[in-house]
Amino acid sequence: MNRKVGRPSGKTEARDELIEQARTLFSALPYEKVSTRMIAESAQVNAAMIRYYFGSKEGLFEEMIRETMSPMRIHFRKMNESSTGHELREIMATHARQMAKFPNFPRLVFQSMSMPESAKPRQLLQKVFDEYMVLTEEKVFEQLLRRKLFRDDVDPELCRLSMMSLMMFPLIAPPAILEMNELTMNEEFIERLLAHNFAILENGMFKTLPSNTVKDTQ
Amino acid sequence: MNRKVGRPSGKTEARDELIEQARTLFSALPYEKVSTRMIAESAQVNAAMIRYYFGSKEGLFEEMIRETMSPMRIHFRKMNESSTGHELREIMATHARQMAKFPNFPRLVFQSMSMPESAKPRQLLQKVFDEYMVLTEEKVFEQLLRRKLFRDDVDPELCRLSMMSLMMFPLIAPPAILEMNELTMNEEFIERLLAHNFAILENGMFKTLPSNTVKDTQ
Repeated sequence: MNRKVGRPSGKTEARDELIEQARTLFSALPYEKVSTRMIAESAQVNAAMIRYYFGSKEGLFEEMIRETMSPMRIHFRKMNESSTGHELREIMATHARQMAKFPNFPRLVFQSMSMPESAKPRQLLQKVFDEYMVLTEEKVFEQLLRRKLFRDDVDPELCRLSMMSLMMFPLIAPPAILEMNELTMNEEFIERLLAHNFAILENGMFKTLPSNTVKDTQ
Repeated sequence: MNRKVGRPSGKTEARDELIEQARTLFSALPYEKVSTRMIAESAQVNAAMIRYYFGSKEGLFEEMIRETMSPMRIHFRKMNESSTGHELREIMATHARQMAKFPNFPRLVFQSMSMPESAKPRQLLQKVFDEYMVLTEEKVFEQLLRRKLFRDDVDPELCRLSMMSLMMFPLIAPPAILEMNELTMNEEFIERLLAHNFAILENGMFKTLPSNTVKDTQ
């Protein structure tokens, strides 16, 4: 990681650099093998800055997850009792585009969630998810169920899992599986995948889903 | 694993027991941590039997993969130039039901395929896949493409990945994700998932897909 030349090297920049290096290192190595010293060295800042900004390695991990997921937060906030599935589309699009920027992050989430409940990374991840995602998303799915927006031939309780499957599997799949399909993970692929998945969901899962309102949020 | 009482403890039984213990141990531990002595002890047979039947640890791993995947083989053989997608359904059903019997096996495949190309488990897995799956499946997909059986609004090159996503993600997902959706992995869940996924694919991906011909192959 090269430091940007000619920019003031203020405290905010140090904080951002710590988040970025934490994301890279926690994605590449097991949680217990990543030390605060290692992150500070990669970020080229004093290790005391980690204590100052985040309190500890745990605090830094948690904040790194929170910041990486934060673009989705605004959509979750917009979700309310009258949601029709349109916000779900926006979340799927924002999530996929954000993940395209940090291609190793989905695997980090997947691996952390696969750990036992007692494992620190799993607990920290769960904490961030619980803050603003799981409950709102659940409420919206309940709404979709109550308003009978799913097709009669699909299993409504499996619809949320199917949406996750279509969006998450390509992001965590072994590169060999993408290669087998002659696909490469990049921004163009993400946009193709989004358009394709919306078509499948629109025809295969929903009775109605507004299709003209997804904006490019890049 | 209890030995069945009252059955003749012939050579075939020792071989089957070695396969079964290999599947359990290779799913639970990294490949290099599993020794032939360990497998022989779990199977309660002499370690020399591994050399006799499989040649080596590599040979046993390979044969364990081959036998676990073998129920799909018959369907791949049936696939031919006139396939319409019906065989794909049969393969999806057979695969899901076989995986329900060995719930840790999909994760073993997923983890092995995520390894670098030089890793032994990845190479052995690839060898078995290449034998009878990848090429036949590719031929069938080419047929589906050529005969324009996919809907116009989906991306035909992504259809194979979507089918994998819908079937594989629920099998490898962290238990926490199933719990979040109030789902439990068992045979009933697999049957629900199959019916649900067929409905999504039929309406969301295919123009036509015979729906009255999937037999219970259990």
